[in-house]
Amino acid sequence: MVTEAPPGRGLFITLEGGEGAGKSTLGKALAGELVDRGYEVVLTREPGGVAAAEAIRDLLLSEQPWRWSPLTEVLLFSAARSEHLEQLIRPALRDGKIVICDRFADSTRAYQQAGGADASAIDALETLVVSADMPDLTLLLDLPPEARHARLVQRGVARDAFETRSDDFHERARAAFLAIAEANPDRVIVMNASNSPEQLLKESMEAISARLAVRAS
Amino acid sequence: MVTEAPPGRGLFITLEGGEGAGKSTLGKALAGELVDRGYEVVLTREPGGVAAAEAIRDLLLSEQPWRWSPLTEVLLFSAARSEHLEQLIRPALRDGKIVICDRFADSTRAYQQAGGADASAIDALETLVVSADMPDLTLLLDLPPEARHARLVQRGVARDAFETRSDDFHERARAAFLAIAEANPDRVIVMNASNSPEQLLKESMEAISARLAVRAS
Repeated sequence: MVTEAPPGRGLFITLEGGEGAGKSTLGKALAGELVDRGYEVVLTREPGGVAAAEAIRDLLLSEQPWRWSPLTEVLLFSAARSEHLEQLIRPALRDGKIVICDRFADSTRAYQQAGGADASAIDALETLVVSADMPDLTLLLDLPPEARHARLVQRGVARDAFETRSDDFHERARAAFLAIAEANPDRVIVMNASNSPEQLLKESMEAISARLAVRAS
Repeated sequence: MVTEAPPGRGLFITLEGGEGAGKSTLGKALAGELVDRGYEVVLTREPGGVAAAEAIRDLLLSEQPWRWSPLTEVLLFSAARSEHLEQLIRPALRDGKIVICDRFADSTRAYQQAGGADASAIDALETLVVSADMPDLTLLLDLPPEARHARLVQRGVARDAFETRSDDFHERARAAFLAIAEANPDRVIVMNASNSPEQLLKESMEAISARLAVRAS
């Protein structure tokens, strides 16, 4: 039987960092730029991205009369990620598309570690759920706490279950993001989120173009 | 600092088997009998048992416009179990109580394997979530398919997302339950669910009394 050669795997890009760092603005700008250059782009987010995962997102982020234990929380994020990968991300990458995802496994690791979850549980679940599908490129938008506060006030954002946690929690999460970047220098690029959106788009496109060039060669 | 010696760990009993096998009838009878003999008893069920876990149960068992992947399903059952253990089962056992739980980890293993989940994923999640808290005694109510059908029709049960699966699925689950029993002869007792409720209660109490005697000695 003759089978067609599979198309080249697409490119999986994740945007990470604290709330207010400009991830979704950058995501939209990148998607627009890449579509202009002729690429097929899927712009998505976590937790969520598909209806089944959004239902789990609702459980996680809406006010509840209980507080989830750290282990339960990482299990629920993993369940949402499992559906997102299965239904949307893996098929898109198989079709050769560029997937841009606002938050992914690094957010789970950073926030759950900040909240007291066991690192070995996070490792085990990342291996189980994500396995070979870690991002090709992660753009970490790093923002010092004062700048984060100012932006959130300016935006008047609705504060969800995570955003209402303490400053100390957010500082631990920021440190965890930077530790992930240090441990994965080939995958993660740290960008100063205080820079202008134009500057962030330019830096991001340089990193993406380099990876697309490698893929095409 | 003087600390009080912890009270002896209670006894953790699970009831397993297919729908219609008589688990909840047996659970109530056992709880009544043990309370009559002066024990403190917690009668609970999975998925659920505490509000946080019941919310996950609703996601799992109510009709959804999507079908969860096998891996997502086992992640959600594990998340519910994590809350149930943390909030209810572990504290009750620490207080020396007898916990009787209608379905637990063996149901996840049997049904998820029947539904095509990877055994290594089930192993990894059982280790992560349940770890040292596997039941002291599991009463497996085994019912042949014809008897199961007859009972479900007689009861007019509301069929949930699991109950509406094929006969073949339920046969694979039954085989998986029996394989768990064979692999864990010290923990799992297989009982013929076609026997009378009185007979099942008598057999169960013999097994429980033996374990309580060991614990007391």
